[in-house]
Amino acid sequence: MELIDLGSIIHWLGLFGITVFAVSGALEAARKEMDILGFMLIGTVTGLGGGTLRDLLLGAVPVYWVQQPLTVTLCLVAAVLTYFLAPLLASRYRALIWMDAIGLATFSITGTSIALSLGSPPLIAVCMGVMSATFGGIIRDVLCSESLVLTSRELYVTTAAAGASSYLVLQLAGVGEIIATLGAFAIGFGLRAAAIVFGLKLPRYKRPVT
Amino acid sequence: MELIDLGSIIHWLGLFGITVFAVSGALEAARKEMDILGFMLIGTVTGLGGGTLRDLLLGAVPVYWVQQPLTVTLCLVAAVLTYFLAPLLASRYRALIWMDAIGLATFSITGTSIALSLGSPPLIAVCMGVMSATFGGIIRDVLCSESLVLTSRELYVTTAAAGASSYLVLQLAGVGEIIATLGAFAIGFGLRAAAIVFGLKLPRYKRPVT
Amino acid sequence: MELIDLGSIIHWLGLFGITVFAVSGALEAARKEMDILGFMLIGTVTGLGGGTLRDLLLGAVPVYWVQQPLTVTLCLVAAVLTYFLAPLLASRYRALIWMDAIGLATFSITGTSIALSLGSPPLIAVCMGVMSATFGGIIRDVLCSESLVLTSRELYVTTAAAGASSYLVLQLAGVGEIIATLGAFAIGFGLRAAAIVFGLKLPRYKRPVT
Repeated sequence: MELIDLGSIIHWLGLFGITVFAVSGALEAARKEMDILGFMLIGTVTGLGGGTLRDLLLGAVPVYWVQQPLTVTLCLVAAVLTYFLAPLLASRYRALIWMDAIGLATFSITGTSIALSLGSPPLIAVCMGVMSATFGGIIRDVLCSESLVLTSRELYVTTAAAGASSYLVLQLAGVGEIIATLGAFAIGFGLRAAAIVFGLKLPRYKRPVT
Repeated sequence: MELIDLGSIIHWLGLFGITVFAVSGALEAARKEMDILGFMLIGTVTGLGGGTLRDLLLGAVPVYWVQQPLTVTLCLVAAVLTYFLAPLLASRYRALIWMDAIGLATFSITGTSIALSLGSPPLIAVCMGVMSATFGGIIRDVLCSESLVLTSRELYVTTAAAGASSYLVLQLAGVGEIIATLGAFAIGFGLRAAAIVFGLKLPRYKRPVT
Repeated sequence: MELIDLGSIIHWLGLFGITVFAVSGALEAARKEMDILGFMLIGTVTGLGGGTLRDLLLGAVPVYWVQQPLTVTLCLVAAVLTYFLAPLLASRYRALIWMDAIGLATFSITGTSIALSLGSPPLIAVCMGVMSATFGGIIRDVLCSESLVLTSRELYVTTAAAGASSYLVLQLAGVGEIIATLGAFAIGFGLRAAAIVFGLKLPRYKRPVT
């Protein structure tokens, strides 16, 4: 079970999440009909934003991509490919939503894991997971003047919180890195997928009639 | 006069400001009819945002709440309580404005004090006070797509600048921590309260007719 | 050729860029008819924002203006002067666009140069140049609820990328600091100026008709 390099799993999952978020950013750029440099900028900022905020808050500077230019290259390539391939998609908005959902579940886990490995207390590690997962999408939407994912979409913050907390609980339960990661991904992504497909929402606060 | 622990006064004032800003964030979430996790996110970001920016700029990382998870808990509890108690308020908008005013005066002082204690020059300490005081509200308004407090409300930046500067001047005058804090709070909060009640504004720049 | 202090050229160019961006921020405040403290806040944030993000990401904290309060003073003075002198301008919007263009070309060079001097790999240094150059304008536009420079203006990100890359290439070619700086400024500013005057744009992504 533990034969696979643990650090490596989180590492590869992180690269996967970065790529997926970069594509979601580029798809948003497509919806706004930007030029190719707009795709590259929004794709890169969306892909790297969540992890960058996490590193800044934890004081892990220079932030990770300064040491790993590969991650920047990955975002740039993903954005350029999206620029040329997006027209082949039947629905760019649908693709964006699902890319965002995969990135959300992925980063809620990697953010929590990295915060724990840097010595954060459990509550803080969960906060870092939630912020890593949501910040890329927030900044993408702010830069594109889109209504924020936070306020409009189904179980968005909830998914990030569920992914981060279940990873923490599974880790504390001692099930091992791989099962904790897969389990938390299943819970986080499953919840968001169900919310997208079935339109699940938490009850919204209702302003009392006055 | 100096029997009370000085560090402690700024510490408690800081916790008070965090709570008040968290409530203001949650009240904004109520106005936008978010779900309970939206309340928790906006409340926490508003409560902790100003101090987080200050710590990042000064290089005091990891930022304070990573070491003091209590402050995060405080924001989460304040947001949840607001979710359930807000319907009892006659006017959530009025409550938000006053909570924001108290937080603004409080953070202009604590931000300046902490920057001074970390060795910042006076001008920089005042800037940190102004940013600590205004940034939580700015990010709350950006996340909620609200028109910014900065541009629309009465004497907003002015209040932060008055609170921060008067704290600095009183400290330099050697009146002691307690009097400096109370005096600066009276000036900052009094100015904002007068502006809210009487609609005071600085003259706006008028575009010349061309 | 090399008699002039090299560090000094980037230093003075940096101060110049800060001032120009501060004026562009203050001109935006004029368009929004803010009060004088609004001018000071938007001017300062626009002038210092790009370099602040660069320092945060590279871990060069406290950020530069904490050590150099002169830069803050420069922004405040530029904002106050703009408040009083802006009515004399025939077109504040035109002035803003050109100030922004000069700042953009300047910061793409100084951002790249400083990142290189702190040991960043070439790709990262170019990213820092692009971000230093664009972030001040982005935050100005977010705070003023203006449609983002990124998405609407001609060759904006392209200019920043061209300035940063040509500075890097000229430096690697060993032409010396002064020629690299002047050459890159000519390319970056020339490109943006041409784009403004002739309305040049990269082709925008076209959503396929479905």
